[in-house]
Amino acid sequence: MKIVHTVEDLRAVVKSAKSAQKSVGLVPTMGFLHEGHLSLMAAAKKNTDFVVVSLFVNPTQFGPNEDLESYPRDFEKDAALCENAGVDVLFNPSVEEMYGSGYSTYVHCEGHITQALCGASRPVHFKGVTSVVSKLFNMVAPNKAFFGQKDAQQVAVIEKMVRELNFDLEIVPCPIVREPDGLALSSRNAYLSEAERKDALVLFKSLKLAEQMIEAGERDAQKIKDEMKALIEKIAYAEIDYVAIVDAATLESVQRLQGDMLIALAVKIGKPRLIDNIRLWV
Amino acid sequence: MKIVHTVEDLRAVVKSAKSAQKSVGLVPTMGFLHEGHLSLMAAAKKNTDFVVVSLFVNPTQFGPNEDLESYPRDFEKDAALCENAGVDVLFNPSVEEMYGSGYSTYVHCEGHITQALCGASRPVHFKGVTSVVSKLFNMVAPNKAFFGQKDAQQVAVIEKMVRELNFDLEIVPCPIVREPDGLALSSRNAYLSEAERKDALVLFKSLKLAEQMIEAGERDAQKIKDEMKALIEKIAYAEIDYVAIVDAATLESVQRLQGDMLIALAVKIGKPRLIDNIRLWV
Repeated sequence: MKIVHTVEDLRAVVKSAKSAQKSVGLVPTMGFLHEGHLSLMAAAKKNTDFVVVSLFVNPTQFGPNEDLESYPRDFEKDAALCENAGVDVLFNPSVEEMYGSGYSTYVHCEGHITQALCGASRPVHFKGVTSVVSKLFNMVAPNKAFFGQKDAQQVAVIEKMVRELNFDLEIVPCPIVREPDGLALSSRNAYLSEAERKDALVLFKSLKLAEQMIEAGERDAQKIKDEMKALIEKIAYAEIDYVAIVDAATLESVQRLQGDMLIALAVKIGKPRLIDNIRLWV
Repeated sequence: MKIVHTVEDLRAVVKSAKSAQKSVGLVPTMGFLHEGHLSLMAAAKKNTDFVVVSLFVNPTQFGPNEDLESYPRDFEKDAALCENAGVDVLFNPSVEEMYGSGYSTYVHCEGHITQALCGASRPVHFKGVTSVVSKLFNMVAPNKAFFGQKDAQQVAVIEKMVRELNFDLEIVPCPIVREPDGLALSSRNAYLSEAERKDALVLFKSLKLAEQMIEAGERDAQKIKDEMKALIEKIAYAEIDYVAIVDAATLESVQRLQGDMLIALAVKIGKPRLIDNIRLWV
């Protein structure tokens, strides 16, 4: 595996793979890799000939009071995990390499899709995501790019951006990877104390509750959300950011469940704000 | 020459040129082609193997009270000019093909570079330009793209966008093409009456005046601008939008001329708002 830190070096290795007629897969990450990221790399290995992983804690997707500074980092471990996963190139640029002095060009999906759900409490987040992902797409020009369905809104936003800006590549969303008890893997789980780790399971439990209600025939979104919230509120210190039932592509709220539905939530459990979701056809 | 109307057809012809190892040049236009556009096509022919011209009157770069509806159009003549110029593909999409229902993704260079000069009176203009140019870049993935220096600010903005979003291509700015008397060619010259056409020469004359003052040793930007304005104001009905002397890359105003300077102006002569500029090393 090659480790490169500059756009120029990245382009050189990708170019040589392309001239050998290899298809290229890109897995953008912010590092502190877990099984969720490894599942993206495995999908990339399976679907493309040459796998590029980017590892960059992107400052433009963090708000001023968010956890940019404290975001967990462990480059040596991450590099070893990528090596073991059969990654071909690990791209680990500096902030300076990505955003030079006077940087001011952004890609933004305006409107509901970035204002809903996480966008309401993280107003600059998706603009930072689409901008950095556009940069990575332009650097690598991958055939396919792999994103985790855990960040369901991110997937929806990036799919819209790719379609509307005519990026010539395919987005491959990959299933959420969970701990044996159901907790969705997240680098931010590292912030949880032992007690919080147990309580954090309430996100998954509330989604299972919703699933059971839907299987039993419930179609009223408000009733389902109320039951989910009631369950979460049993954890006294949990702070619900949102519990939402929306159309999976547009993220528009629904009153009655029908079609391709996304049930998503964000809850603060102690320090970290955790997210989880299920997508289901009703 | 092939004429294509869809992104899919465009990609197919460009792909086959690329598989034949041809380098690809892109000339984005809004049509109503004149010698200025033809000089871009000639530069593209000279510098690349396969020339794509896009012809699209892009609605997102017009403000609500601008001339989108009345912008001059003549597709048959344009197609013949492209054919004669040896263009390989003419891409002429519909608005629907470029901006489908619910479109909301934009690329924007924020800050001074798009707020200065034309940006002050055309606040949405450059956002529309960078968005549509990004789309064209993603559709064609050209090796080089050709833009006229007449739109000097557009060139500066697109160069910044290419650099900051890491587009893997080269921007080739091409010199302004002028009528024998000095008037810069523009599709909007079609709006001018015979009398206005004569008066419109004042833009070029004011730039020549500035050049003479600089040659004679003047370095005070205000003095030069004052003389230019005084000359223009002799045309009673001319409305000056701006007369500016700025750094050619950042478009920051200067008090004393030094280095790579852009002298640019926008003046309304009757109906059309005309622009012109000179770039010179002081």
